[in-house]
Amino acid sequence: MQSGFAEQQVKQFERIFYPRSIAVVGASTDPRKMGFQWVAGLLSAGYKGVVYPVNPAGGEIMKLKIHPRLPDIQGPVDLVICCIPRAHVLDLLNDCAAKQIGTIYFFTAGFRETGDPEWIEVEEEMARRAREGGFRIIGPNCIGVSCPEQGIPYGPSPLVNKVGSAGFISQSGGHAGKMAAISLTRQIGFSKVASIGNCCDLGSADFLEYMAWDPKTGVVGMYLEGPRDSARLVEVMRGVTRRKPVFVWKGGRTSAGARAASSHTGALAASASVWSAALRQAGAVEVNGLDELADTLLLYQAVGRLERANLGIVCGLTDGGGGEAVLSADACAAQGIDVVPFTDQTRRELLGVLGQVGSVLVNPVDVSQRSGNLQAFEKAIELVAAEPDIDLIAVYENVDLLIAFLGRPLADAMNDIVAGAGRKYGKPVVVVSPPGTLDKERLEVESRLSGVGTAVFPSMERAARAIANVRQHYRMHPG
Amino acid sequence: MQSGFAEQQVKQFERIFYPRSIAVVGASTDPRKMGFQWVAGLLSAGYKGVVYPVNPAGGEIMKLKIHPRLPDIQGPVDLVICCIPRAHVLDLLNDCAAKQIGTIYFFTAGFRETGDPEWIEVEEEMARRAREGGFRIIGPNCIGVSCPEQGIPYGPSPLVNKVGSAGFISQSGGHAGKMAAISLTRQIGFSKVASIGNCCDLGSADFLEYMAWDPKTGVVGMYLEGPRDSARLVEVMRGVTRRKPVFVWKGGRTSAGARAASSHTGALAASASVWSAALRQAGAVEVNGLDELADTLLLYQAVGRLERANLGIVCGLTDGGGGEAVLSADACAAQGIDVVPFTDQTRRELLGVLGQVGSVLVNPVDVSQRSGNLQAFEKAIELVAAEPDIDLIAVYENVDLLIAFLGRPLADAMNDIVAGAGRKYGKPVVVVSPPGTLDKERLEVESRLSGVGTAVFPSMERAARAIANVRQHYRMHPG
Repeated sequence: MQSGFAEQQVKQFERIFYPRSIAVVGASTDPRKMGFQWVAGLLSAGYKGVVYPVNPAGGEIMKLKIHPRLPDIQGPVDLVICCIPRAHVLDLLNDCAAKQIGTIYFFTAGFRETGDPEWIEVEEEMARRAREGGFRIIGPNCIGVSCPEQGIPYGPSPLVNKVGSAGFISQSGGHAGKMAAISLTRQIGFSKVASIGNCCDLGSADFLEYMAWDPKTGVVGMYLEGPRDSARLVEVMRGVTRRKPVFVWKGGRTSAGARAASSHTGALAASASVWSAALRQAGAVEVNGLDELADTLLLYQAVGRLERANLGIVCGLTDGGGGEAVLSADACAAQGIDVVPFTDQTRRELLGVLGQVGSVLVNPVDVSQRSGNLQAFEKAIELVAAEPDIDLIAVYENVDLLIAFLGRPLADAMNDIVAGAGRKYGKPVVVVSPPGTLDKERLEVESRLSGVGTAVFPSMERAARAIANVRQHYRMHPG
Repeated sequence: MQSGFAEQQVKQFERIFYPRSIAVVGASTDPRKMGFQWVAGLLSAGYKGVVYPVNPAGGEIMKLKIHPRLPDIQGPVDLVICCIPRAHVLDLLNDCAAKQIGTIYFFTAGFRETGDPEWIEVEEEMARRAREGGFRIIGPNCIGVSCPEQGIPYGPSPLVNKVGSAGFISQSGGHAGKMAAISLTRQIGFSKVASIGNCCDLGSADFLEYMAWDPKTGVVGMYLEGPRDSARLVEVMRGVTRRKPVFVWKGGRTSAGARAASSHTGALAASASVWSAALRQAGAVEVNGLDELADTLLLYQAVGRLERANLGIVCGLTDGGGGEAVLSADACAAQGIDVVPFTDQTRRELLGVLGQVGSVLVNPVDVSQRSGNLQAFEKAIELVAAEPDIDLIAVYENVDLLIAFLGRPLADAMNDIVAGAGRKYGKPVVVVSPPGTLDKERLEVESRLSGVGTAVFPSMERAARAIANVRQHYRMHPG
């Protein structure tokens, strides 16, 4: 794979993700229009390069001069964002060639995905003109790229994710946007995000090759409906997964979904089982849904390598953890995550710390009978971490009850113990914190934990699936 | 089943759920203690009867006199909440007999679930004394009952749910509390809730019989780990499900979960497959998890009878619904919910309303190309509702984008159309609103919708499962 990825291609992608300048063609002075929002988003996100609004009407946006046409811009243009109607795109491509831009991405839609031969032909002509003009196209029918490190937000918005190791390639702009939103709350860090749309030129395999090369990307997530370069994608993937985990959510798995996908991106979806087999052979791990993909990227960033995943569970941080213990053990077992019984000695020691009445001491351990006792809580975690057969620890906490019964300061002190435990005992610790009535407080607790690298999940089932997915990668790629 | 449920039993249960007075034994003046919180919870929840705090130390709680012992109370006592240490419970039971109480429930734990023969024997002695004394026991090791209509909150808290048709019987107090919290946000209405604990006297079947009789209960949810009266429960259930849907979440399905369940409520769990078969034969629908149970109760309250469930999906309320369309169709199909293609005529009419560029018109219909156009939006819903093969409609909305791009007033106006569509077109409408960054606004939108009886789900997958569960009941009990 590296063989085919030359220095010239790297340069091309660097102009996409680290552009010195971005021209927004179709810029508008009307704040309700996308052509305004693309410009405003770049400025308020703190994009590190120069923004050139372009519109024949001229004028000013946020104190930036609007250039009538691309060739009117003085400096070089690395990247063009296009949000003009589809009728005008071919003329624009001539200007792109004249201006020697690097890449253009088309927010503009209405091409291959309509099924209309006339517009399919226009899309093909677009690709031809790009080839002849020496530049590249992303899309059409996409929302382009985001690079938090460069201050490039996701789409026509000011949302910039935390800088981190995850790359994301999406055949749906909507799902890429949703991932950006989810990741803000959950503090998943991204190196690069690309919404690739109809892929008339640059395809899913091109972006995957670049992210495989990119030293800042450590793990790749993908949302695919049925890219036109799927054969090459699978081939590229086979090489990539030997070095970096690739987690794929395949949309249009069912006939109803495939019908929608065909209408959405013009995807000709192979059957779900063919895709599953191909992804498995390519060494990728298939996930089911955007949340599961986000969970898996988050877990990977928090814990990294995970070849074995016997789980120790601590629950009942405040009163009544018995039901939580049963649910947690069931949820893990259902996902193939072993909740191994504690050794007799550990049980005896837990009994000494927690007492017998109302306690569950088998794994899960329910610490509710020493509710709010920080020493007992820390000791219980220490005992679980010391079990040689346990590889990582999940703490289940009900923020509603925690704050109602123990108050915020004590709840925070308990979470400080949780956040510090991973390093202290040398085993990863994750937190499960289901939604309740105190959503603001729960998000604050989550933010506190994720801010120091502790992954937080809204349910044990979702934590267990993420753990199983990361483990799956390392089982497929041991050593 | 009704045959065995005599007037006397009804009276007994009316004293539990509509008590004229409640004595809290172990009441405390220390606000950090449970013995205080039980009393405070009843008062602040607006309990409609008289509260008698009881503690030999005497004193006052929130201006209520604390009685030294039960027999010191002047008036009759229907219900006793016990939160004293286990060593003193037998003496208390003698007082209960003397006072001719109706029922006592034991928050106190440390009996059968410990596995200790001494405390198992005490639990059996408790049941004997209740039989001899002519009163009943709920628990021990439980959080008792809630009845929103009577202002009885859930456990030692001021949380009172909306009054409604759902009954809930839970072998875990924690899960009952979590259900109470979930239901507050989602506005699921409850008739009665019972956390039944170790069931040394009143068992799961007794509560189910009462809820089957209770005219205010229209649907029953259960969380079971492995009740001691399971044979009778299944027998009773067979009769109940002919008249009211019963949705059961069985905890301890896996060996890890069963181990925790045994330590939690002393449950001797039969294998998961045996339980599944027994529940199916009893005409109940098995669900997997608390969220799924809540989703199912919510859907049942919103739509009622549902023998067929072909779904029409409207998505992309603001820009970019293509990915949502694929995900929605896949999620439904995976749960066995048919997303039937629209007729050619409907497609043509949708094309006229929405245009071709960027639109998905197959079912799902993606309305994003007329984003914010209320007339087009309403017309699209009307066209979907008019499809004879479609039984109910799901609207997928991304509140983050909706508010960011269209603003709150327009978002509210669109949701008013959604909320009114069910009645207007005679087909139930549900909403899917996934979490994002604007959690406060999303909850406000949810509250607005659920306040007028529109069920809201956080994902299409969960909506589809709830739909499949309710349909499953009516498939098992047609006509």
